[in-house]
Amino acid sequence: MSNVKTFHDSVLTAASGGTATPKLLPNGDQKPLEKPKAKDWTSHLSTESKTRKASPLKSSFKYLSNPGLISLGGGLPTPAYFPFESISAKVATVGKFSEEETLTSGTTMSVPKYDKSAGAYDLARALQYGSGSGSPELLEFLTQHTEMIHHPPYADWKCVMTAGNTSALATCYRMLMNRGDFLLMEEYTFPSAVETASPMGIKPLGVKIDGEGVIAEALDELLSNWDEAARGGRKPHVMYLIPTGQNPTGSTGSAERRKAVYAVCQKHDVIILEDEPYYFLQMQPYVRDAPPAPLPGSHEEFIADLIPSYLSLDTDGRVIRLDSFSKVIAPGSRCGWLTGPAQLMERALRHNEVSIQSASGFSQAILYQLLSQTWGHSGYLDWLINLRAEYTARRDICLKAMEEYLPEGICSWVNPAAGMFIWIEVDPSKHPQISEGLPVIEDRVFQKAIDKNVLVVPGSWFIVDEDAKYSKGKLFYRITFACVASELVVEALKRFGAAIKEEYGIAA
Amino acid sequence: MSNVKTFHDSVLTAASGGTATPKLLPNGDQKPLEKPKAKDWTSHLSTESKTRKASPLKSSFKYLSNPGLISLGGGLPTPAYFPFESISAKVATVGKFSEEETLTSGTTMSVPKYDKSAGAYDLARALQYGSGSGSPELLEFLTQHTEMIHHPPYADWKCVMTAGNTSALATCYRMLMNRGDFLLMEEYTFPSAVETASPMGIKPLGVKIDGEGVIAEALDELLSNWDEAARGGRKPHVMYLIPTGQNPTGSTGSAERRKAVYAVCQKHDVIILEDEPYYFLQMQPYVRDAPPAPLPGSHEEFIADLIPSYLSLDTDGRVIRLDSFSKVIAPGSRCGWLTGPAQLMERALRHNEVSIQSASGFSQAILYQLLSQTWGHSGYLDWLINLRAEYTARRDICLKAMEEYLPEGICSWVNPAAGMFIWIEVDPSKHPQISEGLPVIEDRVFQKAIDKNVLVVPGSWFIVDEDAKYSKGKLFYRITFACVASELVVEALKRFGAAIKEEYGIAA
Repeated sequence: MSNVKTFHDSVLTAASGGTATPKLLPNGDQKPLEKPKAKDWTSHLSTESKTRKASPLKSSFKYLSNPGLISLGGGLPTPAYFPFESISAKVATVGKFSEEETLTSGTTMSVPKYDKSAGAYDLARALQYGSGSGSPELLEFLTQHTEMIHHPPYADWKCVMTAGNTSALATCYRMLMNRGDFLLMEEYTFPSAVETASPMGIKPLGVKIDGEGVIAEALDELLSNWDEAARGGRKPHVMYLIPTGQNPTGSTGSAERRKAVYAVCQKHDVIILEDEPYYFLQMQPYVRDAPPAPLPGSHEEFIADLIPSYLSLDTDGRVIRLDSFSKVIAPGSRCGWLTGPAQLMERALRHNEVSIQSASGFSQAILYQLLSQTWGHSGYLDWLINLRAEYTARRDICLKAMEEYLPEGICSWVNPAAGMFIWIEVDPSKHPQISEGLPVIEDRVFQKAIDKNVLVVPGSWFIVDEDAKYSKGKLFYRITFACVASELVVEALKRFGAAIKEEYGIAA
Repeated sequence: MSNVKTFHDSVLTAASGGTATPKLLPNGDQKPLEKPKAKDWTSHLSTESKTRKASPLKSSFKYLSNPGLISLGGGLPTPAYFPFESISAKVATVGKFSEEETLTSGTTMSVPKYDKSAGAYDLARALQYGSGSGSPELLEFLTQHTEMIHHPPYADWKCVMTAGNTSALATCYRMLMNRGDFLLMEEYTFPSAVETASPMGIKPLGVKIDGEGVIAEALDELLSNWDEAARGGRKPHVMYLIPTGQNPTGSTGSAERRKAVYAVCQKHDVIILEDEPYYFLQMQPYVRDAPPAPLPGSHEEFIADLIPSYLSLDTDGRVIRLDSFSKVIAPGSRCGWLTGPAQLMERALRHNEVSIQSASGFSQAILYQLLSQTWGHSGYLDWLINLRAEYTARRDICLKAMEEYLPEGICSWVNPAAGMFIWIEVDPSKHPQISEGLPVIEDRVFQKAIDKNVLVVPGSWFIVDEDAKYSKGKLFYRITFACVASELVVEALKRFGAAIKEEYGIAA
């Protein structure tokens, strides 16, 4: 990987979160910032979010900068009673990312309790009560990273840190929807996104998808023909999407598809919740029996090769992007960030203040030390490129095993370009007991796989609309190649293939 | 501090979270468990909580224990890609708790990525997706600690870990109340508890307090005379309390007061949310001009000397206790736990699954390593006794300075037995401009203090009912002695005294 410091330096100088400073383009040209401001989203806010006020105590914060002032105000414990002198971690060294290399040549990084140097994020601060938008230092790194990857095309965007995407999604729902509101989603989606919404009285509604995710024309048709009386609720104004490496279908929308969907959202004034845990699990192209394509040769190439996010297309400020460390660092960090228009990010921050307060200070201190102080933007991009190579290798082994073991003519799939999942369509029409109906066939194949000692997830578990279950006459199973060692994935697919063949009465 | 291992061992053996094993009493006698089960609280659940379902994917968990099964099910990243080889921390050593001693004789503790020994809580697990009730290891420690301190008097109580009390409180509100419901609170309370409730459409309602917190008779009168039509809502069935070292009044209810309030809650079927961040900041008695009382000589004495919690009185299972590490370890841990009847804890767990998921794995790993593996229950009690000594010393210096600098006849207060706060009543009737009204006087004193370079918080900022503001004809200011060095607290009180004297036209 080439050193591209100059490129990053210029992008970082420009990463302002939207203030009107001159913007340096990647090619080095400078031009005055001409980004428009986001639209006004007040009318999209829920009753809960509209009525949320800032704490009256915050009005006293202005006095805290008075020289010599002694505050007997805030109920903070003194850091003298935090029983930690320092925390440290042995972490992967840039360019030597494997577990084996980390064991022998890992980097030890340390966060002391007190560090008086300017801008230091020490434990006395990290473990104290902090801002609802996260520590300024880590937030700055994430804002720079967001600018570098997405270049949001409007001026007043902001980032706010979260306690991970599941928590952040609940925040977004509560910010934008009242009981009785509909929520648009891909027709098969992450079950938690549905389970979070339903108890709030929000009604999830599936939009038709193909191998690229939501079909723009289907979305337009649904919204254009919305009948409030028949539907029992106002026209949906929020859509939840997993645009890249979708869970469970593994689909990734092309730039063209995203532009088309975005245009429909503009037409019908829909806010997009872009949940992107798998964005950096975009993989190298897969061509059957061909050698793997070479990795991006530079950071510019890597960034340029990423599918454009909805955030990067968002001229209106109608996208709230949910970024997570769960798939690129570790789920246990319970730390992520939202990006969106400042007015909505302010509402999210106010919500944080009366819920999570902030992500864990241990998580923030360790992530800041790792990302900003140890790896830097350049090292983090190297890490992401390394993950791309790792996931590509795992997926390729998995696809080859599927080609070998799953019976042609019964099983089919779209090779995933991103994420952790492959969505296997199993044709029920050729099953000898098809007359017993799809639910029976789905369960038979699932149980036969369990008998053969492999667990795959039936597709119907991911459907948004209970009524639409099996209505297409198709059956799916979701598998993942992310967690289990590749040799076990191969063995598991051999078993799954045998299970299907047995069910379908095909000689092994 | 004496070694009381035998006592703890017996209590720990008995700490079962309520399963029907024989219980060892502190005196060593064994008797069969006769605790009743909690009442049924189904009718108290909110619409949101009632309709919350477990994830369908969980139904597949039962297969994961099949021998030899390969799961291609869960979307977990492999720990091989967590870039951490180990984390470690230098922490205070038992018996040498000061910052200075930690610097020179701190204990270094370490959590490796992989630890194959039985029951080890390594990073591969701590940083992976985990249970919504927290890691079993840390949860076990907290359950034992809860048994040891509170001995809840019913059988089926459980603990569930949270992301700190602010987040846990929001969970409890959403579990128990619908829009339009009233919430009982101390008439002056923690502003966040009000700010969390109001946007949810929950109507906070102040209950009269004295120096011991909520007055049982006032509570009974309010509930006995509830007029649904006049009030515009059903009779309240939830009460939020900070029973120990209340914020802002610093009050602590006696055992008698708590029993009386609990009886009223039984009479009117009210669930108590017992928010107890300051429970272990109970201090030694303060007697003016007397030397400080000696610290508890043993762990038994320390525990016996603690004010009984509502949880410890709760024969019905109508108390949900909120415990936090914020004031006894560090706020940045964003980790705490709920204790209550199993049926409500299951609802809280389900809510966690679609919001925070769990506390940060970094926090959990570090807290487990510190509390369970490094200090143990005995060392943690030593730490808490040490905190008691530290807070007692700070409070005593503060009280002495108040006695010296605040003008008698104008300022009065109850010496706090717990917590971080002192609630100073300033008699407005003697103010020369009293004709201008209480809000003016309150602000004049506040501003004069700011002019003298000291920040104190006006009492009206904590009032629950806007209408009740100033209705008692009293003015209060909240101060804290927790965060600022004691010599600065003394200086600040000197300034505050001067500000009051100047305002009241008294010669300095």
